[in-house]
Parts: sequence; structure tokens; C-alpha cells
Amino acid sequence: MSSQTQEKAESATNSTKKFKLGLLGCGTVGSGLLKILAANPRSQNLQVVKILARNDKRADELATQLELDRTIFTTDASEITSDPELDIVVELMGGVEHTKKILLDAINNKKNIVTANKDLLALEGEELFEAAKENGVSIYFEAAVAGGIPIISTLKQSLSGNTILQLQGIINGTTNYILDVMKKEGRSFNDVLKAAQDLGFAESDPTNDVEGYDAAYKTAILASIISGKRVNVKDVFCEGIANISSTDIQSADKRGYEIKLLGIIKNDEEKLDARVHPVFVPKTNPLSNVHMENNAVLVEGDAVGMLTLIGKGAGSLPTASSVYGDLMMLSSSLSSSSIPDQQFVCTHSDYAAMKDINDVENSFYIRVSMHDKVGVLKDLGDITSSNGANVKFIDQYNVQGQEAHADFIIDPVKESIMQKMLTDIRALDTIKEVESVIRVLN
Amino acid sequence: MSSQTQEKAESATNSTKKFKLGLLGCGTVGSGLLKILAANPRSQNLQVVKILARNDKRADELATQLELDRTIFTTDASEITSDPELDIVVELMGGVEHTKKILLDAINNKKNIVTANKDLLALEGEELFEAAKENGVSIYFEAAVAGGIPIISTLKQSLSGNTILQLQGIINGTTNYILDVMKKEGRSFNDVLKAAQDLGFAESDPTNDVEGYDAAYKTAILASIISGKRVNVKDVFCEGIANISSTDIQSADKRGYEIKLLGIIKNDEEKLDARVHPVFVPKTNPLSNVHMENNAVLVEGDAVGMLTLIGKGAGSLPTASSVYGDLMMLSSSLSSSSIPDQQFVCTHSDYAAMKDINDVENSFYIRVSMHDKVGVLKDLGDITSSNGANVKFIDQYNVQGQEAHADFIIDPVKESIMQKMLTDIRALDTIKEVESVIRVLN
Repeated sequence: MSSQTQEKAESATNSTKKFKLGLLGCGTVGSGLLKILAANPRSQNLQVVKILARNDKRADELATQLELDRTIFTTDASEITSDPELDIVVELMGGVEHTKKILLDAINNKKNIVTANKDLLALEGEELFEAAKENGVSIYFEAAVAGGIPIISTLKQSLSGNTILQLQGIINGTTNYILDVMKKEGRSFNDVLKAAQDLGFAESDPTNDVEGYDAAYKTAILASIISGKRVNVKDVFCEGIANISSTDIQSADKRGYEIKLLGIIKNDEEKLDARVHPVFVPKTNPLSNVHMENNAVLVEGDAVGMLTLIGKGAGSLPTASSVYGDLMMLSSSLSSSSIPDQQFVCTHSDYAAMKDINDVENSFYIRVSMHDKVGVLKDLGDITSSNGANVKFIDQYNVQGQEAHADFIIDPVKESIMQKMLTDIRALDTIKEVESVIRVLN
Repeated sequence: MSSQTQEKAESATNSTKKFKLGLLGCGTVGSGLLKILAANPRSQNLQVVKILARNDKRADELATQLELDRTIFTTDASEITSDPELDIVVELMGGVEHTKKILLDAINNKKNIVTANKDLLALEGEELFEAAKENGVSIYFEAAVAGGIPIISTLKQSLSGNTILQLQGIINGTTNYILDVMKKEGRSFNDVLKAAQDLGFAESDPTNDVEGYDAAYKTAILASIISGKRVNVKDVFCEGIANISSTDIQSADKRGYEIKLLGIIKNDEEKLDARVHPVFVPKTNPLSNVHMENNAVLVEGDAVGMLTLIGKGAGSLPTASSVYGDLMMLSSSLSSSSIPDQQFVCTHSDYAAMKDINDVENSFYIRVSMHDKVGVLKDLGDITSSNGANVKFIDQYNVQGQEAHADFIIDPVKESIMQKMLTDIRALDTIKEVESVIRVLN
């Protein structure tokens, strides 16, 4: 857009201070960032002066591919972290232990940090943020959660007048893609996962995504912002989607739900409830309409009410768009002051009191195969009523004329009670197997 | 939330500088803002020192209602605009000419401004922003568009690396409510409007909402941010929803669409296309699922792709939530520097070249009543083919066994050609009346 370009150029000339960046890692997101920087005259006050490459061969390739001066590439991270000229280090290399050491080096050398690394922040955030506080520098990380969706700045700035009562997020694109294709094409989890791997939508080792770990890292980061306390990722209950079947997805659909892997945070009681698991989402919830690899976050604030953000959760340019937004905010703050913008400072000093999953109340969807259709209802009724639980929506059907099945939804009960009931249900003579247990969004 | 409260208090002690606010107007949003300020320890660095009330009686009432010192109320705006102690003036009184004069006074006295007044900004923004530039102060206006949805800061900060290619917004809650109830209950526009007025969801004079003027003000503001140029609201084509019928809504539904009043901006050609009108929205578009009085904005950026924000577009606390977010950003910027945050400075100097509605291409839905079912198809075919247009999805039906009707969709053509074809269609012997013409989202 020529008019937009011109306008941005005018704006850029207003701020004279130039900031020097070092870029750690130059893969998908890093090269996306370089493209955005080159396309935006407003980034005239940002200059990438050093880029870390894995080795010399990769540096040669990148210099050619990106048409950049070969001399700005290095294979030695310390050339970036210790360069006294650099103001900002952008970390897009991934990894945890090794990367933490490099960033601590940079922070101790008074570099401000922009990162997209959720694993690092969720696992080692405490050490990094403490170091940043001591050194009077900032860590910006919009791209670490939900890619191009500006959920971090929305929580930290726009909704700063709110107590966030709850958050629900589709924050892993791979699992949303798999569940969506399973539904559309009636295919099994393993089948769709394999196809997704072939298409490059899923990693060759998909554990991090399908077991929910990636979503748990992001949930820990969001829970920390929402509660204003530190949250340890090991305290975020986590269950993946590998056991979800086509049958479950169809049952959900019939009952007015979509199955989604959600990060869920509830902040309305004394203890903070943060967890990741597949869940029946009512079709009236905007998250139920988020398809394919898209991400979405629904937040409820005590003032703003429900606010939903939907967009691309990964990919070169969407993620780089968030990194760039951080760079603009950071450089705007740096150009006027040597003090970090207080809105983006992490001031957490102690850990949140976390709710144990056993104390969390949910509705549950249960699917069982049965030996004896007639006796099951009475047996289930005995178990649930003796535990103070209520069954609704029971549905019985046959599979291939042989096996009798039933699925039903249990009104909200504590996880501990549900697990006790499941043990009892599994022990019933009338029940062959409990095939699925999926929580239902209240 | 005790933990959140404590955290916010800790954060507040970090920034020592205290800012004094004057509040112009203390109705629905103003009192919401006072509630949020009182509830948030982070706002310890903000102090409301003067509030403008309409008259002494109202000042007495407000002081009692809000449990505030009667002496902070005044009926004289100049006591606020000229108070040398004040740093920020928050304008929530509404109105255009008179309010502009008051704000110019405040700006010339070096006050920073936070406002929710879209009419004022769309009609008199140029003078206000010029004055702000000359005086080195800022004007923040998140609450002026889409209430609690942080669309302004998303465009100005988070998406600053993007060229925004297009925007579609449900930015008037009253019309979305009316269309939604018309659909759900199969009632007429006038019937639902009256009920909405009785419930307080629509004004006693609903012109501003139902004719699309309110949405046009907001569209002009958004178009200006997106293009980086000034946009005159009179250049925003505007058509309201008063002619939408239940029949149209049902026809849309049958064809896979919802009818919504949208602000539409396209920024992908030389000229800027900005308009407000009812439109068939495909059910695959997330805006089609935005119900009742909710607002939503979908933006497409060249880097981020499609990003959709859905939330409350009006109301005391949601709007005040955005005003508070602005106050936090503004005070954070003021506490570190005397220079306005460059990201929130308006640097527009000339007007955008606007696309004339006659040059805009759209699909069109047309509904006609007919004298002669047999002849119509041939006649329509003659008109459309001689204008290079293509008819698809023609559907004929009878109403109450007497009148023959047809509705059809025409593939994208320029507005000028569509209007010419409509003149020809109206002149046909076979056509009794053209009952509806509604644009269809491409």
C-alpha cells in the first residue's frame, strides 16, 4: 500500500533513536521477521546487526537466501549477547537449557529480550524474569502464546482494569487440526495424525502437541499473567487427545458439542484452577467454531465481560507479526525512557496456590460397552446416586449388531468423586469396558 | 481476587508519579470508570480530582450516589480544562461542537485526552489531533470503537508490522440485536425496534443506529488508522437496516448466510473503500455467529492473516474497561517521558483517496415480486447478460397463493452497473416490484 508505506515513513522520521538488534535463530519465524522488518519503513529505527546461525554452512545459505551481508552472521552466541552496541536480543531459536544460559548472558549484559519460546518461559521463566528485574531490562513474549493473536498485550494493557475470572483457549493448532479433520472425515486419531505428519502440520515426534504439553506451557504462562503469581507448569493438569475417537466426536455433535483441546483457567475462587484437556464445548461457545489449525482465546473479565480473539496460532508471518509488535512497543518504551514499561514488567514474587485437579468440578461424558443392557441402568443409578451425582442424556445403541453401548453425561461433580465412580463402574458385571471419559465445559 | 489485588498493589508502588484526572461527564460510562478505578490498586497513581456535572442538582445526586466528596464536582468545564494541576482529561460527556471547544481548551492547556466519543473524533478529529500535535499531548480513544474490544491498540501496536488489507466489523450493537431478534422470532423490523426501545436497547430516536450513522463514524475512525490517512465520514457510504425484512433474513439463512450490518474497509487497491451497509455474511465467516448486542471486528493483515475479536460493544463496565486500559497506557507513557508514545500519535496529514461506492464491486441479492413467472427468467437473462453480469441461485416461490416471487444472487458487479440493471429490472412488464436489494460479502 503506497499510502500506508508513505505514512509509516513519515512516522518513522519522528523518532530519531535507532536500536540495534541481535537475532538468535533464523528459521521459519526469524526469516518472517526479517521480511516484515524490510517491508516496514517504521522499522527504520530498528537495525538487525547480528544473526546467530547453527554453523558456517547454514550462515552461507541464509546470507544468500535472505540477501544479507554474510558478515552479520555468526555461529557464536556470545558475539550477540556480549556486543555492547546491541539494545535488544530477539530469541527465536527454541530450546530450553542452552537457550536459557544464552539469554541470561544477554540479560546480564543489559539487553532487552523479545522471545517466542513458551517452553523456556514456562519452565525457566522465574530465573529469567528475576534476572531481567535485577538488570532493569524487559522480556516481551507476545509470540509465545497463540502466535499472531495479541493475547498477552490484551491481558497486560487493554484489560488491566479487569480481574480475569476465566480463560478458555484453543492454543495448540496441531490438535485442533487433528480433531477438526477427524470430525469432518470421520477418520481415526492415528490415521489423521499420520496424514498431518505427512503434510507437515504435525511433528515427526508429535508428543508435545498431542499429549497437551505445548498447551500446558502456554496455559502456565497465561495463568501467571491472570493471577499475578508464578505458576509452575507441573501444577497444570494435562491430558492429551490420543484417546479421542470418531465415535466420541459424533456423540458430542449429536448432543450439541464440539470436542476441543482447551487450556482452561478459572480464577474465581481462592485457588487457581489451570488445566489442559479435551473437553465438550457447547456449540453456542465461539470456540466451537474455531476450525483447522486456528487458535482462539476466550477471556471473561469482571468489567469487559466475554472477549474472544480468534486467529492464526503459528506460522512464519503470523508469529513474526507478534514479535514485530513487541519490538515496536519495546523500542517505543526504550526511546522515551531507560526504565522498562511497568505494564510489561513481571513483578510476580510468589507462587499461586493451585487447585488440585481432584477438587475441580466438571460435567463428564462417559461411553461404555455393556454385557447386559437391562441391568446397566439400575447399576449406574446405584453408583451415581450413592455418590450424590446425577446422570442425564443416557443414550444406548448397538455397534455392528453385536455389542451394546451406552453414553451418558454426568452433571458437575468433583474429579475425585468421578474417579471413584469410574472404578465402581468398571467393576460392574454389566459393564464390559469404560471406553471414553471426557470432561464437559460447564 | 485477593492474590490479583495484592499483585496489583505491589506493581502500583513501583511507579511513584501520581497523575491527576478531570472527568467530563459522569453518566453510564463515567460511573463505570469510577468503579474500576476504585477496585484497582494499580490505579493508585491516578487520582480523579474534578468531575463535571450538568448542574448543581445532578452534582448533589452524583456525590451521594458515588459516595464522593461534593467539592470535586463542578458545573463549569473550564475549571477542569484550565486547572494547572491536571494531567489528563477524560471526556465521557458526548456531543460534538460544544465538546470540541472544551477539549480544545484542555489540549491548549497541555492536557492529555482520553475519550469514548466517536462522533466527535469522526467529525472533528482533524482539529483535535492537530491541536494535540502542536501541544505535544496525546489523544487516546480505545472506547470510541467497539466498546470493550481492544481494536484500536491491536491495530496501532500489535499489528503494527502489518498492512491491513481489509476489515469487517459488527460495530453497532443495536442493529445487530434487532437483526438477531428478527431472525430468531421471525418478527418485522418495526416490531423488534419498538420492543428494543421499550427494553432500553434502542434510543427513542433510533436514527443514528438504524440508519448506520453510528457505524459510519466508527468505520471512518478505523479506516483512518488502517490507511494512515485522514478519512472524512461523509466519504463513508452508509445504508441502514430499516428495509430488511424477515423474508430476506430467511432467504439468507436458506442460502447459508446471515444478514449483518457491517462496517467494511478494503485497503488493497489504490483507493480506500470504506462503507457501512447490511450484507449477506457467509456462515463460515466468524462474524455470522456474533449474536445479540455483541460487537466483533475481523481484520486481515498481510502478515497475521485473519484475526477476529468478539466482545461487548457498549455498556458501562465494558466501555469503562477500555477507557481504563487507555489511562494505564497513557500514564505508563507519561511516567517515563514527556514525549507522547509515538505509537499512539496521529501523524495523518492528508486525506485518503476514497473509492466511490459506484466503483465498488459486490455480489447482490435481489428479491422481486412478479406478474409473470414464465417471462421473468428470459427478461432477467437479457438484462444481466447485456451488462456482463451473471445470475446464480434463482429461487421462485408464491406468497399466500397469490403473488409470485423470486430471489436471486448476482455475481460481483460494480455498484453503478447494478443500479443500471435495477432501473431496467424495475421497468420490466413481468416485474411488479423490486422488494429487496442487499449486498453479499465477497
